[in-house]
Amino acid sequence: MTRVFNFSAGPAALPEPVLKTAAEEMLDWHGSGMSVMEMSHRGKEFIAIHAEAEALLRELLAIPTDYKVLFMQGGAIGENAIVPMNLLRGKASADYIDTGEWSKKSIKEAGKYCKANVAASAKDGGYTSIPPRDSWKLDANAAYVHICSNETIGGVEYHWTPEVGDVPLVADMSSNILSKPVEVSKYGLIYGGAQKNIGPAGLTIVIVREDLIGNALPFCPSAFDYKQQADNDSMLNTPPTYAIYIAGLVFNWIKAQGGLKAMAEHNRAKAALLYDYLDATSFYSSPVARPDRSLMNVPFKLKDEALDEAFLKGAQQRKMLQLKGHRSVGGMRASIYNAMPVEGVKALVAYMKEFEAKHG
Amino acid sequence: MTRVFNFSAGPAALPEPVLKTAAEEMLDWHGSGMSVMEMSHRGKEFIAIHAEAEALLRELLAIPTDYKVLFMQGGAIGENAIVPMNLLRGKASADYIDTGEWSKKSIKEAGKYCKANVAASAKDGGYTSIPPRDSWKLDANAAYVHICSNETIGGVEYHWTPEVGDVPLVADMSSNILSKPVEVSKYGLIYGGAQKNIGPAGLTIVIVREDLIGNALPFCPSAFDYKQQADNDSMLNTPPTYAIYIAGLVFNWIKAQGGLKAMAEHNRAKAALLYDYLDATSFYSSPVARPDRSLMNVPFKLKDEALDEAFLKGAQQRKMLQLKGHRSVGGMRASIYNAMPVEGVKALVAYMKEFEAKHG
Repeated sequence: MTRVFNFSAGPAALPEPVLKTAAEEMLDWHGSGMSVMEMSHRGKEFIAIHAEAEALLRELLAIPTDYKVLFMQGGAIGENAIVPMNLLRGKASADYIDTGEWSKKSIKEAGKYCKANVAASAKDGGYTSIPPRDSWKLDANAAYVHICSNETIGGVEYHWTPEVGDVPLVADMSSNILSKPVEVSKYGLIYGGAQKNIGPAGLTIVIVREDLIGNALPFCPSAFDYKQQADNDSMLNTPPTYAIYIAGLVFNWIKAQGGLKAMAEHNRAKAALLYDYLDATSFYSSPVARPDRSLMNVPFKLKDEALDEAFLKGAQQRKMLQLKGHRSVGGMRASIYNAMPVEGVKALVAYMKEFEAKHG
Repeated sequence: MTRVFNFSAGPAALPEPVLKTAAEEMLDWHGSGMSVMEMSHRGKEFIAIHAEAEALLRELLAIPTDYKVLFMQGGAIGENAIVPMNLLRGKASADYIDTGEWSKKSIKEAGKYCKANVAASAKDGGYTSIPPRDSWKLDANAAYVHICSNETIGGVEYHWTPEVGDVPLVADMSSNILSKPVEVSKYGLIYGGAQKNIGPAGLTIVIVREDLIGNALPFCPSAFDYKQQADNDSMLNTPPTYAIYIAGLVFNWIKAQGGLKAMAEHNRAKAALLYDYLDATSFYSSPVARPDRSLMNVPFKLKDEALDEAFLKGAQQRKMLQLKGHRSVGGMRASIYNAMPVEGVKALVAYMKEFEAKHG
């Protein structure tokens, strides 16, 4: 067995110890005689797995007690609708900050339920930076202010938490959740698909301040009503049990690495290896403004895009996969989530140098 | 490692060969160097897994080419809302046949979107039979006729396909899909949560005649819009990739067993062992009318419910788990889906006889 360095933007690499545990426990979890996949979600075994996953997530993120943690389904694209269906609370509009592809999807979907007001946009700069806070035109009557904390495609990331007054701040953290500490109390709601830093696709994490829930629109499906899910410990319907189990193993792994502070250092160090090289060469370039560069998703371009195919082929031969940039922006993208070891980034930079030496 | 006989109603037992394959491939699927959980849903490896799973499902159920197969999220409780959001097609009402707990949930949820007309109900008989077709009061202008093909809690099952004229027939088949051949062309839409006969919770299967889609209500979330998902091969959002992979392994296992005809024989033989004994003793009883008894979920009662705890304890000591009936009906329930081997049912019947001999 040869494991690869998998730079996929998501679903993405998982920690190898997590996969090993999952393989070992596949037919018999802790002497239960069952796979976690086979367990009733109402049985004592799974209830323990579920409770431990939630407790670990609360510990890692230091989630205050007045926040509910929900394990849901539908991914961030589902949440783009589920958030306004739950959080409008009688208000007619919500403010959105437009920082790229994922923001745009959120804005378009929210428009089905309310006036989705674009309070600031990075469009004019080609989505290569985060609009500075003092340029945001917020509405004090908005139901919430929505940001995408890390744009997986464009590679821009908030390295600061916006102050938005009394209006709840909502963040799609799909692609940088658990990559660093977060001050949860500054947010009304945090959501994210699991398939980057948490676990398998099909699990969606929602962390929501409990005073904000209980006002779902009448046509909000029960399965996606935060209050109903909160009142039923995320078991109004059968939750994605196996994905929750894997998430728990990942949370345990993060804790064993030293928690989110250690993760942040690890991620800063990895990203620096790449960005330092990108800034030192003219053969490759990073399109993103330095202060707003993502530590999770590093898009870059070759000076001569005619070499793209050769670059990707050479990478694949060296067991470095999924480096092709998103079709909407082209070029390359290295996604280097928590589970990407520093060795993977070193191998990538070494290959980039080798490729430059040959073709530069 | 001792595997148990797991009579859970869902999530439920999976075929052991499927779990063994999943364990073996956990760190490295087919030499890819990745777990299936880590694969980009847009990469060639996962696209092959996804396509094979769909092809196998189409083959097993002989799904006509004018039907779309969608791999979605949210379970049957999600679908209770998603079906009317997609299938009303400008109509004001839909007909529902009320056969128990799951029908009731569907009816209640549909009421958010339309007039959910109860065209027939088994309520008066305590939900122990399927209302005969000639008692149904159908409306020719209904958007669709909804049935629950197997009531997981009450243990009643349709052993016939209702003729409903030109109005599309919609079936929640969560708990008996793939247990027997189904004439798909008689249905407009079939849906089901995966966690009984298909795979892990968190995957929802939708099989829908393509002329019925494309008319979602304006507030239907994009992630749950059948047309948008169909146009994107179920990849409008990241699908539950690992669950789809396991489902594909299960489909392969069913095919290797001889397909759905063989499954039906296997399931009939297993259920007969239990029902024949239930009918031959007065120590236990089955509440369900004989023609409508479920082959998947067999609820039964001990004559003396004071013995329930002792019965369950003894079963557990013999590695037979999850036999407690649903809290809403009490008693016992043996769920004997495809993956339950005949040995499991034989062991249960032997234990029931032993318990009767001791306490009868």
